[in-house]
Amino acid sequence: MSDPRPAIVLLSGGMDSATCLAIAREAGFACHAISFRYGQRHASELVAATAVARALGAASHRIIDIDLASVGGSALTDAIAVPKGRSDDTIGDGIPVTYVPARNTIFLSYALAWAEVLGARDIYIGVNAIDYSGYPDCRPEFISAFQATARLGTTLDDLTMRAPLQHLDKAAIITRGIALGVDFGLTQSCYDPGESGAPCRLCDACVLRLRGFAELGLVDPVMGASER
Amino acid sequence: MSDPRPAIVLLSGGMDSATCLAIAREAGFACHAISFRYGQRHASELVAATAVARALGAASHRIIDIDLASVGGSALTDAIAVPKGRSDDTIGDGIPVTYVPARNTIFLSYALAWAEVLGARDIYIGVNAIDYSGYPDCRPEFISAFQATARLGTTLDDLTMRAPLQHLDKAAIITRGIALGVDFGLTQSCYDPGESGAPCRLCDACVLRLRGFAELGLVDPVMGASER
Repeated sequence: MSDPRPAIVLLSGGMDSATCLAIAREAGFACHAISFRYGQRHASELVAATAVARALGAASHRIIDIDLASVGGSALTDAIAVPKGRSDDTIGDGIPVTYVPARNTIFLSYALAWAEVLGARDIYIGVNAIDYSGYPDCRPEFISAFQATARLGTTLDDLTMRAPLQHLDKAAIITRGIALGVDFGLTQSCYDPGESGAPCRLCDACVLRLRGFAELGLVDPVMGASER
Repeated sequence: MSDPRPAIVLLSGGMDSATCLAIAREAGFACHAISFRYGQRHASELVAATAVARALGAASHRIIDIDLASVGGSALTDAIAVPKGRSDDTIGDGIPVTYVPARNTIFLSYALAWAEVLGARDIYIGVNAIDYSGYPDCRPEFISAFQATARLGTTLDDLTMRAPLQHLDKAAIITRGIALGVDFGLTQSCYDPGESGAPCRLCDACVLRLRGFAELGLVDPVMGASER
């Protein structure tokens, strides 16, 4: 039996990328997970990413330091307030202040470099239907365009970008993750956790996560039941 | 009179990007130069980049630390020997070992992030006809594809990638630079300079540079005359 083919998996430590990693593993890849320390408020997500990579049997996990804070321009890295308590209806209207300029382009570029060094032909990213209502770099058209750029800009002329959550909402992602054995208790989604890493329950990421579990009649293993 | 529009200019400290900066300034842009410390052997090029940015009146100059060495896979960052003494004919055959995986994709991603924060609609890069015979990420098709990706992945849906040297050879670049007042004595091209920053005269970058000046009957202000 030949060794499994390598794939690069972007891993943030949240629910979506954990599910994405489980899907890549299920597809038979040796998964090389990559995370980024980019001056985010929620750097505790990297602790979660490390736990998730281990629990899901990643072949390796690398955390890359990148200097996005010095470029600035986002509530996730700057002294801009993270919006709290928005309703389901207003989340997804326009580009949120938590958008980090060109973040996914930068993340995918590093993933691409590592893919080229490892000879990996597949890059997984957990962007999904809810994200791309607000963030331009989560749109399916962006992911397709990045694949075209990647094929031209490297020796990997058959590289495939895989975004298996692209058309799923949170409840569907949770369902898929549970079926694949993802322990969502290890994940962290909050944009603005307390010092202890406790989720705020009020930012968009917390609201969407709580709603996803509630829709399924489940209790979030991190945040408990939704109060709504 | 309104303020000049901002543009981002990738600046390595070599001849090509110096000329590119001069072209962007001539076009009337307020030029924000960006350089990268990426574990390259030739980090002394960053000293050159700083001098060039100052001499050509850049509005600002930022050096970003990025961790390409930990990804590996290139003679420019790893313990792989830089090829020396290759003839003009063999330079450009295949992808050189000095190719750094996905380097320009990563560099352009940071330039894009900064463009978005500054509201710049133009990114200049000094790739040229000689580079793209060997490096996939210097090809015109790559630059076009990156523009498409950048427009989809950010709020800059009218972003323009500018590669004004794309169809020029070294002699033509030198001629253009001299006409625009570039002091090539400030630039550094060598892939493998000595401790003092002195060029090796034997790597591909030195060979191509010496040939460019020689073709014009000029003496390189850094390396002196070609011995050939």
